[in-house]
Amino acid sequence: MFLKYENLQKTGAFKVRGALSKVYRLLQREKNIRGVVAASAGNHAQGVAYAASVFGIRCCIVMPETASISKVEATRSYGAEVVLYGRVYDEAEAKAREIALEHGYSFIHAFNDIEVIAGQATIAWELIEQLNDFDMVVVPIGGGGLASGILSVLKKVKPNVKVIGVEPSAAPKMLESIKAGKPVTIQVKPSLADGLVTKRPGDITFEIVSNLIDDIVVVDENEIALAIYLLLERAKVLAEGAGAASLAALISGKIATERKKVVALITGGNIDLTSLYRIIVRGLAVYGRIARLTVVLPDFPGTLRDVLEVIAKYRGNIVDIRHDRMATDVPWHARVEIVVEVPRKEVIEEIAKELRFRGYVVEKYSFED
Amino acid sequence: MFLKYENLQKTGAFKVRGALSKVYRLLQREKNIRGVVAASAGNHAQGVAYAASVFGIRCCIVMPETASISKVEATRSYGAEVVLYGRVYDEAEAKAREIALEHGYSFIHAFNDIEVIAGQATIAWELIEQLNDFDMVVVPIGGGGLASGILSVLKKVKPNVKVIGVEPSAAPKMLESIKAGKPVTIQVKPSLADGLVTKRPGDITFEIVSNLIDDIVVVDENEIALAIYLLLERAKVLAEGAGAASLAALISGKIATERKKVVALITGGNIDLTSLYRIIVRGLAVYGRIARLTVVLPDFPGTLRDVLEVIAKYRGNIVDIRHDRMATDVPWHARVEIVVEVPRKEVIEEIAKELRFRGYVVEKYSFED
Repeated sequence: MFLKYENLQKTGAFKVRGALSKVYRLLQREKNIRGVVAASAGNHAQGVAYAASVFGIRCCIVMPETASISKVEATRSYGAEVVLYGRVYDEAEAKAREIALEHGYSFIHAFNDIEVIAGQATIAWELIEQLNDFDMVVVPIGGGGLASGILSVLKKVKPNVKVIGVEPSAAPKMLESIKAGKPVTIQVKPSLADGLVTKRPGDITFEIVSNLIDDIVVVDENEIALAIYLLLERAKVLAEGAGAASLAALISGKIATERKKVVALITGGNIDLTSLYRIIVRGLAVYGRIARLTVVLPDFPGTLRDVLEVIAKYRGNIVDIRHDRMATDVPWHARVEIVVEVPRKEVIEEIAKELRFRGYVVEKYSFED
Repeated sequence: MFLKYENLQKTGAFKVRGALSKVYRLLQREKNIRGVVAASAGNHAQGVAYAASVFGIRCCIVMPETASISKVEATRSYGAEVVLYGRVYDEAEAKAREIALEHGYSFIHAFNDIEVIAGQATIAWELIEQLNDFDMVVVPIGGGGLASGILSVLKKVKPNVKVIGVEPSAAPKMLESIKAGKPVTIQVKPSLADGLVTKRPGDITFEIVSNLIDDIVVVDENEIALAIYLLLERAKVLAEGAGAASLAALISGKIATERKKVVALITGGNIDLTSLYRIIVRGLAVYGRIARLTVVLPDFPGTLRDVLEVIAKYRGNIVDIRHDRMATDVPWHARVEIVVEVPRKEVIEEIAKELRFRGYVVEKYSFED
């Protein structure tokens, strides 16, 4: 398996390829363009801002008010003017198109644009250059721009290479659209892979992807968390949810890869560090390495110490403790919730067993987030 | 500035170089060695375990009982027998030497061994091959094995290249030994750079480092945390504390680097993911991007909502809330401690000002961990 690290790319994601391609072509057609404008809560924002700064043109990015601080600041740091507008992407896009008209700026769509797609396609050319011989590429699908670029090149130049798309179960818009035979708008849920949460594929990207892709698999939130966790623990690199989705699909076993040389595109690394903790904990939980243990203690001195002694005996490592003496359903007792890291999954059962043997009520233990 | 990523090395740290060098040379002298044994709570353990598995020889690693779960499991995963013994390194080392005698195993010291040092020296040869032209190398000092290897090569082959050592303020053993003119044992404190917490340099490493090094600078815990944070947020790679120490020294401004081509060795990435959260929070705090705000609220409905509204208005992002209604020093009130991420340092002052204007008691706000 080969991982292509687009998280180590300028701006932290592959999106800069499409943005550079688009701005370059705009300038080839018209030397004196007024500026560019885009709407994005994510990596497209930074990509366009960076591309505009490279070519020295004005840039305005409209981001929904809910955009994370780090992404707003990163976009500003590339010299773009950031306008915070609307609650969701659609409102931000409407505003961006308004700004485009008002100032004569060129609007750059995040995926439904053949010149943006041509930029993402450079990844396929690089794969051919760097690896030459490979059997499969696994590619996450947000709006479908990346998949369209990869497919356009590979299905022409390397028709035997399989291209597999990955969507989060929170937003399987391409899969649903292919089933329907036309682009459809779906209900989406929040996802760790926020970069893949798009309600509807573009007309252009649907056309390309639906005709050329070999298969699309769906991954859930736990699989994405585990992939982020594994990349961090084992490979020492940081991927965002969307960036880890292709690896998530591979480790989930949903793709037949026997005796195949497989490339997973790690598409970006712009993840909110303040939320990374929850992802790590979830990854450890999926892995059976971190558990949540709820114990009811008689409310007198020494009982908590006794519980911690049992945990230490089995080499459990306390990550967090919440001690609730006000739980009204257990009068004269305290409920303690302990998040504990264990060497192996079975250890938590041994700990629970010994606690019960010592007379404590273990209400539950689980590997859930 | 160039970063050499030894965190992306096999076993996640440069130590595997010294271990491979040592085991290889042992086998050259005697084909049928019984096995190897080492004492380490950290990267030397994994390095020796990996090297032994490469050459197919038996391996026993003694780790102090306090070693982290992830390091114990990683060492086991390379096929080593792990013995947990003693509270501190010295006790583990004594046990390892005992095992060496008992089983006829070769004991491999983590740094005070010229054949281990020769392995670490391969980094210098690689730098010459990969960069050729550079002016300075910044290298963290634990026991001094890495610095000894780098110095032995560069001071001979590239005498104009400056080599600067970095030690944590928690354990400046080489600096103190150089001042004393001989290896001395110092009092150490815990550090994020646990790989650099050594009480005393080796005789061999002291001899080499004290004679050849250009300077040693000392970094504190906040500087180390900020360097880990920056590598993760900007470069998308994970470094452990010791691994980020050279970058910490550079961004602290303690080394004059004007117009110099500088190499920082990012020596390892084996950090406990369950403790990463605290490091990220500290990094954000040093950066002025995360603050702790303590507010006293009258204990009736709607007040917490009101406080959160103010924070949202200034685009603060809540990371954690602890709501304490039992604080006895403020009867009929609740004390709320809020960890909040802000776009810029000044924003926390604006939030505090508006909260006070609305009649709340802001006990304190700070950027401390």
